Amino acid sequence: MTHPALELIDTIYTGNGWKVRLLCGYLGVTLQRRSLSIVEGDLDTEAFRRINPWGQVPVLRTREGPWLAESAAILWYLARGTDFLPTAALAQAQVLQWLFFEQTQHMVNLAQPRLWVELRGTMKRDDPAVLAWRELGDKALACMEAHLQLQHYFVGDRPSIADVALFPYTCMAEQGGYDLQPYPSLRRWLERMQALEGYVPLL
Amino acid sequence: MTHPALELIDTIYTGNGWKVRLLCGYLGVTLQRRSLSIVEGDLDTEAFRRINPWGQVPVLRTREGPWLAESAAILWYLARGTDFLPTAALAQAQVLQWLFFEQTQHMVNLAQPRLWVELRGTMKRDDPAVLAWRELGDKALACMEAHLQLQHYFVGDRPSIADVALFPYTCMAEQGGYDLQPYPSLRRWLERMQALEGYVPLL
Repeated sequence: MTHPALELIDTIYTGNGWKVRLLCGYLGVTLQRRSLSIVEGDLDTEAFRRINPWGQVPVLRTREGPWLAESAAILWYLARGTDFLPTAALAQAQVLQWLFFEQTQHMVNLAQPRLWVELRGTMKRDDPAVLAWRELGDKALACMEAHLQLQHYFVGDRPSIADVALFPYTCMAEQGGYDLQPYPSLRRWLERMQALEGYVPLL
Repeated sequence: MTHPALELIDTIYTGNGWKVRLLCGYLGVTLQRRSLSIVEGDLDTEAFRRINPWGQVPVLRTREGPWLAESAAILWYLARGTDFLPTAALAQAQVLQWLFFEQTQHMVNLAQPRLWVELRGTMKRDDPAVLAWRELGDKALACMEAHLQLQHYFVGDRPSIADVALFPYTCMAEQGGYDLQPYPSLRRWLERMQALEGYVPLL
């Protein structure tokens, strides 16, 4: 029995979609990729809402058939049974802790300045809203720096989907006006992730 | 060998902490609970930052010793090996999908109006910021309603931590000015959750 191909729907520049392609690169898993355009309104169609009712990318067509949304849930699905997802109870929970940290403390503050300053160009680096995001985002980066002063990867002694999830928006932080100079351990971790076999760049 | 007791640090009114106590009620698991006060500055101390560097409750002291943050990661840790966490790959990923939906689309928009309108009293129900949260929150509630028209629980045919995570802020939505009348399937699901053995109210 052959499984249907894993199909990923994303947009070209999304860091959340990059996470999935990055993990597949490290794992040597082949994806069919289809990139939609937010500007063209591709996510705001009846057809796409049947795939994801809350209208966001990335989404993955699973081996079982149904579409799966939420980048971190997709990472979990693809990493099960591989070295990128530990099996012990505490280590799994710590991976999840960083996945939720990424979505609620990190990504939201790092992605928005990049979107409005770099990609759309409708805000400047010193707009009050951008400065507010950067204050919270720098708090998240400082937490990561403190953790990476103690260990090379976020959970245990080898890369997991916690690292994969945190990589894209950290790597692109400077596009939103962040300065990574104060975070030397974070910068070494970024280099470590880029040196892993199978690394896939955004473009 | 006896395990050290599971210890939960929360605040009295937090819905994120309620999730953990609710699951423990359903599972019949005993927790030591210690409630801190945001107003008294308990979360902004050196001692608490050693427990959670990003300064949020709830946190759980695990059986293995380390403290675990992020309510959804705590739910996962406690539910492993129980009926509240399915084991199949797709079902687990779907549970995670709803856990991330709860944190990024649902909780953020339902908790804020409750906090500023009901608990702090510094905003009114028709303030522009509250109306903006409510527009997004109603989108999340409509997604849940559509899903619950098809099935009794969020994943599979029995309650999981996806239901436990989504329950508290949905149950308290009216405190933030939400009207649940347009969501009959959602209201029946709330009643179903309250009727389960071991149900624990907020206070």
